[in-house]
Amino acid sequence: MAAPTSELQAQKHSGKGEGETVGIALLGFGTVGAEVFRLLGENADAFAHRIGGPAEIRGIAIQNKNKLRPGVPQELLTDDAKALVARDDIDLVVEVIGGIDFPRELVLAALNSGKSVVTANKALVAAHADELAEAADRAGVDLYFEAAVAAAIPVVGMLRRSLAGDQVERISGIVNGTTNFILDAMESTGASYDEALAEATRLGYAEADPTADVEGHDAASKAAIMASLGFHTRVKFEDVHCEGITKVTAADIAAANDAGFSIKLLAICERLQREDGSEAVNARVHPTLVPKEHPLASVSESYNAIFVEAEAAGSLMFYGNGAGGNPTASAVLGDVVGAARNIVHGGRAPGENTYANLPIADFGEVETRYHIDMEVQDRTGVLAAISTAFANNGVSLRTVRQEDGEDTARLIVVTHAAKEATLDKIVADLSELDEVKAVHSVIRLGS
Amino acid sequence: MAAPTSELQAQKHSGKGEGETVGIALLGFGTVGAEVFRLLGENADAFAHRIGGPAEIRGIAIQNKNKLRPGVPQELLTDDAKALVARDDIDLVVEVIGGIDFPRELVLAALNSGKSVVTANKALVAAHADELAEAADRAGVDLYFEAAVAAAIPVVGMLRRSLAGDQVERISGIVNGTTNFILDAMESTGASYDEALAEATRLGYAEADPTADVEGHDAASKAAIMASLGFHTRVKFEDVHCEGITKVTAADIAAANDAGFSIKLLAICERLQREDGSEAVNARVHPTLVPKEHPLASVSESYNAIFVEAEAAGSLMFYGNGAGGNPTASAVLGDVVGAARNIVHGGRAPGENTYANLPIADFGEVETRYHIDMEVQDRTGVLAAISTAFANNGVSLRTVRQEDGEDTARLIVVTHAAKEATLDKIVADLSELDEVKAVHSVIRLGS
Repeated sequence: MAAPTSELQAQKHSGKGEGETVGIALLGFGTVGAEVFRLLGENADAFAHRIGGPAEIRGIAIQNKNKLRPGVPQELLTDDAKALVARDDIDLVVEVIGGIDFPRELVLAALNSGKSVVTANKALVAAHADELAEAADRAGVDLYFEAAVAAAIPVVGMLRRSLAGDQVERISGIVNGTTNFILDAMESTGASYDEALAEATRLGYAEADPTADVEGHDAASKAAIMASLGFHTRVKFEDVHCEGITKVTAADIAAANDAGFSIKLLAICERLQREDGSEAVNARVHPTLVPKEHPLASVSESYNAIFVEAEAAGSLMFYGNGAGGNPTASAVLGDVVGAARNIVHGGRAPGENTYANLPIADFGEVETRYHIDMEVQDRTGVLAAISTAFANNGVSLRTVRQEDGEDTARLIVVTHAAKEATLDKIVADLSELDEVKAVHSVIRLGS
Repeated sequence: MAAPTSELQAQKHSGKGEGETVGIALLGFGTVGAEVFRLLGENADAFAHRIGGPAEIRGIAIQNKNKLRPGVPQELLTDDAKALVARDDIDLVVEVIGGIDFPRELVLAALNSGKSVVTANKALVAAHADELAEAADRAGVDLYFEAAVAAAIPVVGMLRRSLAGDQVERISGIVNGTTNFILDAMESTGASYDEALAEATRLGYAEADPTADVEGHDAASKAAIMASLGFHTRVKFEDVHCEGITKVTAADIAAANDAGFSIKLLAICERLQREDGSEAVNARVHPTLVPKEHPLASVSESYNAIFVEAEAAGSLMFYGNGAGGNPTASAVLGDVVGAARNIVHGGRAPGENTYANLPIADFGEVETRYHIDMEVQDRTGVLAAISTAFANNGVSLRTVRQEDGEDTARLIVVTHAAKEATLDKIVADLSELDEVKAVHSVIRLGS
């Protein structure tokens, strides 16, 4: 009665059967890969019980076969990842290589040949989610990526499963440990950005080339993943407005501190109501002023925290180590258990579901409050001129603080909510005023 | 080839098919039930997309059919819950009645007839987990209970799925909003226990009969559930050592505050290393001194927070509204989506797995530090006598603070770690000393 494809699907969904061994290919053997290998070996009994059958790493793809790896049987190692993925005795592929193009090829090959995939690769997922999800759906297999966002903090599982019956309104989080370490160091020691970055590098919190972290790209990948899951709408890396922390100065941090704020690099995913009543979504990453009494303000060092607001659940916060070999391995192994259970018992995890397909709002549509720090002439009438520039654009001021300097004064204003597009216009107008010497910084308020 | 049972299992695991309607029986229509009904109706489209087919509430079991329920079609209401559960057009049973015996009967009937169950009933799950899990396993259906612990804070999902590849060492949490509200009010206003309880009752945070909350029974049910999931070992309600907050005085709170602590009612689930190297687990609920700098100390009002320590993941914290109609409905509906997806697409969620079956350590084996507040004679030699009572039991003192009164003095000591059994012995020894007028309170330190 059934067509061959349906039979294949049914077979897959009904599983290999209790007690059968799940064959695993491990792609990559860096810090995370080595921890996955170690923990899966050391706790083999526990994993067999939790899965319903043994999980066996049958091959490890590495670049350099000649590098010494104590404790790893030589016969497991191969430098031919494609051949490993294609092997008949592999049921599940664990990708912890990093990069985009090569892992994309391997993950697609695995999914297309009916193998489930667990990946920790945020860049890959954020760039190619559609293609990967389609391949997984076509083959009826699982694609898991809990480790791609905030390591063992179960953000992906929460958005995909726990909040599956709710409507997510907003996600805001500290999802990059390197930048949080740098900003925290600047705040607690008064150091400059360059000094704090040097310290982060020295302590191993920043990589030799810190670009992906400090420019916000890493956080933007995570924002894309969280927004896609939370809003059931595909949000890609290139849809995320992204500003890093390289322009944050010690003066910004000090001014924020005086006003009762900490500066944090937040990934913000938001459902917006447009004027015509329709909905859109936006995802962005930028330095943000967080009130000191907000839980996100007290997230120190390289910790991560994610704040979720949902219609019925209200506010939820999740906090923990968002990076590192062990926490990432924990997330990967949680996914391995889930995927392997389905291979043994049948069934599929809830996949990504982008049915809502909401439009992505341009950054200019986003409404927020602003903290603007400028240098102005020290004479009467200046405040009137500046207030007028704001008023002409329909934006009112919430607080104004003036500090007198030698020849010029420093003026710090906090606005009421205004759209990004309006703010751009105001900054342009301010720059044209004779009264304004320089606009030093514009930092958004939020949480 | 296959026996009839396996065929039935395979059929169930392969699902009803994409687009098929999932028939739901809703048992109970209190605050949570009404919210579940409302949200499932208002967001019917979203649910259909997330599940893979429509979810339809086909019957609602209530006690009083004549009570007016605006917006609820009369034909859905029935006072015969058993008949509703038995109906052929019901695939999934959602139990939000509360109590133990009657819901137990209904849930077992549902599972035994091959229907998946979502319940928010912590008392039922903590008391009868074994029986329910076995029935679900036998029928190859799902039993979900995310809402049973801390409402929409996804503790159950995290322990069951996200940390499935890790080893949980310790769980400590504020899992009862009523008692946290009372203790927080006592700390912030200096109120007595009775005054704070009255305020909690007035504001709707405490029920007319607050026993289950203030005596710690509610928290103990949640501790049993968390320990069972975290340690893969059945821990029942009666295995949980339980002390409530009724004996906590304003003086205790003030003394704790002076020493840099907040008093919180914690549910603590712990993996213990015995002297012979073997492992055991313990679950307990009692007022606990939490250092003010610990994240749990700043959990205010009726909020809940759960702190989990796992081998690879490190420390994770989850925070949010742990009770109330909306947050509980969010958790129930997340489970409904999960269970309904499996009904449509096939497969089963990971069930409870008690393979580790670790022994449950007696409370006497638990090691902790103690804050002991006593009234002593105000004369020389008293401290020596008291120190000796501790030293004779092998326990050393960490800090000693003396406040002089009129005829007697107040002595507050904090011990180094000692076993509960030893502490009982010390308190008995102290009570026999002439120098000790009274031991006012013994509060454990922890986090």
